[in-house]
Amino acid sequence: MGVTVPYQKTEMASRFDEFLSLDISTPALVVDVPRMDRNIRLMVDRLAALGISCRPHAKTHKSIEIARRQLSAGAIGITVATISEAEVFAAGGIDDIFIAYPVWAAGAKRQRLARLNDTIRLAVGVDSVPAIEHLAAAADMSVRPLRVLVELDSGEHRTGVPDSAGAVAVADAAATAGLEVCGVFTHGGHSYGSRAAARLAAADEVDVLGDAAQALRAAGHAVRVVSGGSTPSSPYAVSESLTELRPGTFVFGDRQQCALGGLGEDDLALVVLSTVVSRAHAGQVVLDAGAKVLSKDLPATVDGYGWLPRYPDAHITRLFDHHAPVTLSAGPEPTLGEVLAIVPNHACAVVNLATELVAVHADGSLEWWPVDAHSRNT
Amino acid sequence: MGVTVPYQKTEMASRFDEFLSLDISTPALVVDVPRMDRNIRLMVDRLAALGISCRPHAKTHKSIEIARRQLSAGAIGITVATISEAEVFAAGGIDDIFIAYPVWAAGAKRQRLARLNDTIRLAVGVDSVPAIEHLAAAADMSVRPLRVLVELDSGEHRTGVPDSAGAVAVADAAATAGLEVCGVFTHGGHSYGSRAAARLAAADEVDVLGDAAQALRAAGHAVRVVSGGSTPSSPYAVSESLTELRPGTFVFGDRQQCALGGLGEDDLALVVLSTVVSRAHAGQVVLDAGAKVLSKDLPATVDGYGWLPRYPDAHITRLFDHHAPVTLSAGPEPTLGEVLAIVPNHACAVVNLATELVAVHADGSLEWWPVDAHSRNT
Repeated sequence: MGVTVPYQKTEMASRFDEFLSLDISTPALVVDVPRMDRNIRLMVDRLAALGISCRPHAKTHKSIEIARRQLSAGAIGITVATISEAEVFAAGGIDDIFIAYPVWAAGAKRQRLARLNDTIRLAVGVDSVPAIEHLAAAADMSVRPLRVLVELDSGEHRTGVPDSAGAVAVADAAATAGLEVCGVFTHGGHSYGSRAAARLAAADEVDVLGDAAQALRAAGHAVRVVSGGSTPSSPYAVSESLTELRPGTFVFGDRQQCALGGLGEDDLALVVLSTVVSRAHAGQVVLDAGAKVLSKDLPATVDGYGWLPRYPDAHITRLFDHHAPVTLSAGPEPTLGEVLAIVPNHACAVVNLATELVAVHADGSLEWWPVDAHSRNT
Repeated sequence: MGVTVPYQKTEMASRFDEFLSLDISTPALVVDVPRMDRNIRLMVDRLAALGISCRPHAKTHKSIEIARRQLSAGAIGITVATISEAEVFAAGGIDDIFIAYPVWAAGAKRQRLARLNDTIRLAVGVDSVPAIEHLAAAADMSVRPLRVLVELDSGEHRTGVPDSAGAVAVADAAATAGLEVCGVFTHGGHSYGSRAAARLAAADEVDVLGDAAQALRAAGHAVRVVSGGSTPSSPYAVSESLTELRPGTFVFGDRQQCALGGLGEDDLALVVLSTVVSRAHAGQVVLDAGAKVLSKDLPATVDGYGWLPRYPDAHITRLFDHHAPVTLSAGPEPTLGEVLAIVPNHACAVVNLATELVAVHADGSLEWWPVDAHSRNT
């Protein structure tokens, strides 16, 4: 297991070394803007060539600036997970947002949803009949009909109705309640198991969505949106039956995505800069980026809490709130005060812990981008 | 393994039920203020009876309001992990702060440290001779000498010099560089292994600190502070050789602390409120508090990503960014839209993900407290 890719001085990998000499207080999250822009362009263009729209999941970057770059590159809108994320992006001028989540519009969320629906082109997910009553109440407060997409489970067994019959039942109830049924969506998150799983999950997404779209049409519903997608499955979710994909992590890449094959080492556009602050024990150095920076996300496909390109045989085997002890093997050792780049396991988790990103442009100039939707979980 | 304590309608546990009817958008972190105040008072008073000062670690709560309550109860100051945390608390009027971390005062951190040292009664940790050069440079920018405590390893094998000889070498170098050596500290974090480990770690802390204090005194250093502490080891770190303890998590408690025996179920003062948003799959409900709220912290002493007091046999077996699927067993099942209280595994990790705490006072009134030092990692 583990992505212990040998450190090579490739065009892109050497950019990490350039970051190390930047005068940035650590720990810090650094974005390689040219790489990020390339990731965005490649995804949007590849999908466009297949006739599929890209609606990137913005929970990965939570940044209005990055969302704008995605739209400029041809994305048709963005995906978010919460009402409060949608509020932040709507305030930032993003006017086409899908909340890919079974929104439970109780309490204050009802009015907030209505206000959003008044302002932007909004759609929300639904996977149960009881949720419809609340969504309909929100829609009643809005000047426009509320658009909904019915969520299907394609194998992740998390949310989403399990079959087309269930999807039709939810769609019928939604239409009866005055909601505007627009189509179906799924998240083939079982793509995260392995490279083989990513291919199989993509096939599941295509099958389940195709069947459900057909069933909804047969029941008299207009199905304009058939939406799948996760970054690992997106290279394989190629079908005329899909209208859009919602990958998120592709924008930065991370260790997990490298392990699953969707992105390569030279596509990585986000690293954590961290300083060696202690060398009190033989065979170990301690970095100043702990769980409050790297997160304790530890996918089964990688080993340790991050990858150090300069010291590929070193492992972050333990992680405390503010300390990352690195177990060293033979070979050169990091010195006290040395700044290292860490490739995180899971980009979404790491960005979620930060309030700003240090953006490094092609000319080496720096810009600080706020993580606008930071902590927007409600 | 696992703390599947049966749900009992004790005085304190029934408070969780009261929270469920509060009109709060989920996910949300709710603090039971009377319980929290009791936890603070009990810890400070118990240590005071032993002649030991309490300097709570504020990385658990990151809240100026809570730090003030700790000081009002008799704490002599607070502990933090980073310069930026210290800056936030200093701005909030807390004027005695120990950064219990081997601070590497490079770049902009040098000036920031000097400014802090000008403003408040500050001390910082050091565990290497090379770090001293940077701390001395910071001290040169300050109007006052910079106070340092030498860190010792007492068995966690993370940071801290491994023995008294190492401590004397660092103390000598610090004094030569013009820093004010005030004493020694350690973090007996190996207390987190088990209840037995907590007792043994406390004994290690007392032994290691006692030896080091003696060695520093023999080498001519004034040793006014001998500082140990972690929440699990603090009940056992009882010795005339210690002057202060720095427990953090005791303020709220969490599942891990219950498993380690330092706090009981009725001491828990922090819960996450979350709504059931999906029931699409038999034997499972999905809550709206995912890894971005609960964190993926999964100590070996507990099972699953949180404990549901109302459904003690249910388990949060998987955790996604915004979804917590709960595996149900026989018995009553949560309904769609039901709000549940989740006891988190690790309070520090959960608070670190939030920007505000909903404080519930004894009379049921609510107050929103900012997590002032949120994301202050540099």
